[in-house]
Amino acid sequence: MNLEQQIEQLGQLAKAASRKLATATTPTKNRALTLAATRLREQQETLLTANFQDVELGKQNGLSSAMLDRLTLTPSRIDAMAKGLEIIAELPDPVGETLEMWRRPNGLEIGQVRVPLGVVGIIYESRPNVTADAAGLCLKSGNATILKGGSEAFRTNGAIVDALTAAVVGAGLPEASIQLVRSTDRQSVAFLLQQDRYVDVIIPRGGEELIRAVTQRSAIPVIQHFSGICHTFVDATADLEKAANICFNAKVQRPWVCNAMENLLVHQAVAQSFLSAFVPTLEKAGVEVRGCERTRKIAPQLKTANEEDWRTEYLDLILAVKVVDSLDEAIAFINTNGSGLADAIVSEDYSNVRRFLQEIDSATVYANASTRFTDGYEFGFGAEVGISTNRLHARGPMGLRELTTYKYIIQGNGQVRE
Amino acid sequence: MNLEQQIEQLGQLAKAASRKLATATTPTKNRALTLAATRLREQQETLLTANFQDVELGKQNGLSSAMLDRLTLTPSRIDAMAKGLEIIAELPDPVGETLEMWRRPNGLEIGQVRVPLGVVGIIYESRPNVTADAAGLCLKSGNATILKGGSEAFRTNGAIVDALTAAVVGAGLPEASIQLVRSTDRQSVAFLLQQDRYVDVIIPRGGEELIRAVTQRSAIPVIQHFSGICHTFVDATADLEKAANICFNAKVQRPWVCNAMENLLVHQAVAQSFLSAFVPTLEKAGVEVRGCERTRKIAPQLKTANEEDWRTEYLDLILAVKVVDSLDEAIAFINTNGSGLADAIVSEDYSNVRRFLQEIDSATVYANASTRFTDGYEFGFGAEVGISTNRLHARGPMGLRELTTYKYIIQGNGQVRE
Repeated sequence: MNLEQQIEQLGQLAKAASRKLATATTPTKNRALTLAATRLREQQETLLTANFQDVELGKQNGLSSAMLDRLTLTPSRIDAMAKGLEIIAELPDPVGETLEMWRRPNGLEIGQVRVPLGVVGIIYESRPNVTADAAGLCLKSGNATILKGGSEAFRTNGAIVDALTAAVVGAGLPEASIQLVRSTDRQSVAFLLQQDRYVDVIIPRGGEELIRAVTQRSAIPVIQHFSGICHTFVDATADLEKAANICFNAKVQRPWVCNAMENLLVHQAVAQSFLSAFVPTLEKAGVEVRGCERTRKIAPQLKTANEEDWRTEYLDLILAVKVVDSLDEAIAFINTNGSGLADAIVSEDYSNVRRFLQEIDSATVYANASTRFTDGYEFGFGAEVGISTNRLHARGPMGLRELTTYKYIIQGNGQVRE
Repeated sequence: MNLEQQIEQLGQLAKAASRKLATATTPTKNRALTLAATRLREQQETLLTANFQDVELGKQNGLSSAMLDRLTLTPSRIDAMAKGLEIIAELPDPVGETLEMWRRPNGLEIGQVRVPLGVVGIIYESRPNVTADAAGLCLKSGNATILKGGSEAFRTNGAIVDALTAAVVGAGLPEASIQLVRSTDRQSVAFLLQQDRYVDVIIPRGGEELIRAVTQRSAIPVIQHFSGICHTFVDATADLEKAANICFNAKVQRPWVCNAMENLLVHQAVAQSFLSAFVPTLEKAGVEVRGCERTRKIAPQLKTANEEDWRTEYLDLILAVKVVDSLDEAIAFINTNGSGLADAIVSEDYSNVRRFLQEIDSATVYANASTRFTDGYEFGFGAEVGISTNRLHARGPMGLRELTTYKYIIQGNGQVRE
């Protein structure tokens, strides 16, 4: 069997497994998850040995120390993976939820019921905890998973999936519920992306380059997570203390994540009072602030922010600041330059808040809170599958529900169409 | 401006228009729709003249009489288009519906609110009523539309869109709310499918070939409507009179539509009694019945159904019949050979019905009713945008709601992330 046939076989097996998983009971799925957690802990030595080999090879191949750190397993990281699975076991099962049910005049009863997507393909980069996490979330939501990890974690991912499949089989579920593409050939991804007969959705987890490459080549729908160019607009009536707290949090707490603020817009009426105090606060925290001309009149020490700055996701302690004349200008600026992920207004003006919330076309729009809350856990979903920048199917933070679709169940007693 | 630039400009204009449409009030959108209906009736002569030119050209180009019929406008067809828009005006507006709202422990209030998709591209074949229908449904759901009709209806579609945009402007909405690709160059479709910066979803309306071509070339998500290979399974305990009515309706009432039955499965326990009476009924109605070996023992006059028959969408008065040993065999057969659109069981056995409804992986699954009900109007949606065979975003009959997505609106009073 050549590589293409091997990948196709993974698809076939996954589809068959997904039929069983779709009707598996919640206790069965939970047992598989808790068994998997136990198994990961029991197999600690095996996992560490496999991981050691990957790390040694990574060193030889000149991986950066950051990449090596992300790749490295430790007993506590293995325990965290196991705990993650136990937490997923405790989450409510989304499958079977009746979304709506109604009766038609002809007596037909139509129910819209949540069902799994089917087969989910996950393509991800080095961090090996994604293996257990993604497989666990898919299992809980009744989906079969085909995992394709980075080649630098080849042995580690193999050992993790061995532990997971043993648990799945132990719980009486099909072995092919969780499968790994066991090839470091780059072609394997291309073949996987053509299995639209068997794979229902692809979720790439990694940088923008990976996502673009996957989207371009995929015959299967892709749930994308592109960049986050997030804004905060400090309105004329903002409580400036709240504004400073919110903006500081949005920029500084974790600058390398997608929901961190990249552009700060300030209404001209409060620009002087707000920025003269807040820019030094940012600078003290190590933030490089770049300003428009009007910002630089208030803080002349700043670098100039140019057109490119407004469209750059820094993922770093850098912030671009612009003074605007009005709410209208702020809304137009955000809808033009933003990435549609998370944007906030700080304002005490009721009508302005209302307009901002309605008119900003982003997955998550905030009034008087930090954009950093765009996160499945912070939303109360109990888990995070990712944060979608798609408009179709799932938008914003994705929990278990977003790994499902629905079907209609129609019950009658002999109805025919006139 | 070359063609590619023209198409990109349509995209830019549509995106800008979609921002206005997203916050347009329901009465404004309804006024545009009723004005459009009036305008179509007023412009009857203009429409008929443009259509006459298209039809004449079509005759010269050797269009089939069926295609010419689909292309031809008449006063009553124009009136039907206008009435269609008036009906859309009366439907509830899906935009702004709060799907869920909850409060987090930190006091943040998170609301999930229905919003338009944005810009919808519709690519369709000759029937010109799609122009008004699709544009009207998109307008009501707050979306801007870019229409690309078949070149054989070029002048007709142009005249219809002229009437629609005049109405849209008359209601105070942007002219670019509804735009037509006014080019018969085939490249225009390819360019449209690359406008993923501006166009949010593509809905092809037409045959399988069109849909496949569009899907293959599109950088934009496509809502597909592929074939319907629909089954009815007559179980051992079926009420055979109900079964005959349901099967007759599913096959004969409108055989050329996607929700018509193509394969009939009959439990061996009732095969003799059911088929010996029902096959002649079908034959009397002009249905060509093809049977498996066991079916042909009961009705030896039948042609043999081969492997290909089980996977063919006849869209015609042809039916393939198979005798099966069990519910398990029926379920496995349908999940393997069906297209996942609409499948039915006829049975009085509670547990079998329950298993069938749960285990058949189709968009619409029926107990004791005809598969012909898979239809937006029959489901009570008041409109039908199409019937999706996608699993993501929308599955099965699509109404106005399925032309929307959601966003999260988060209200706080200074919350920051710890």
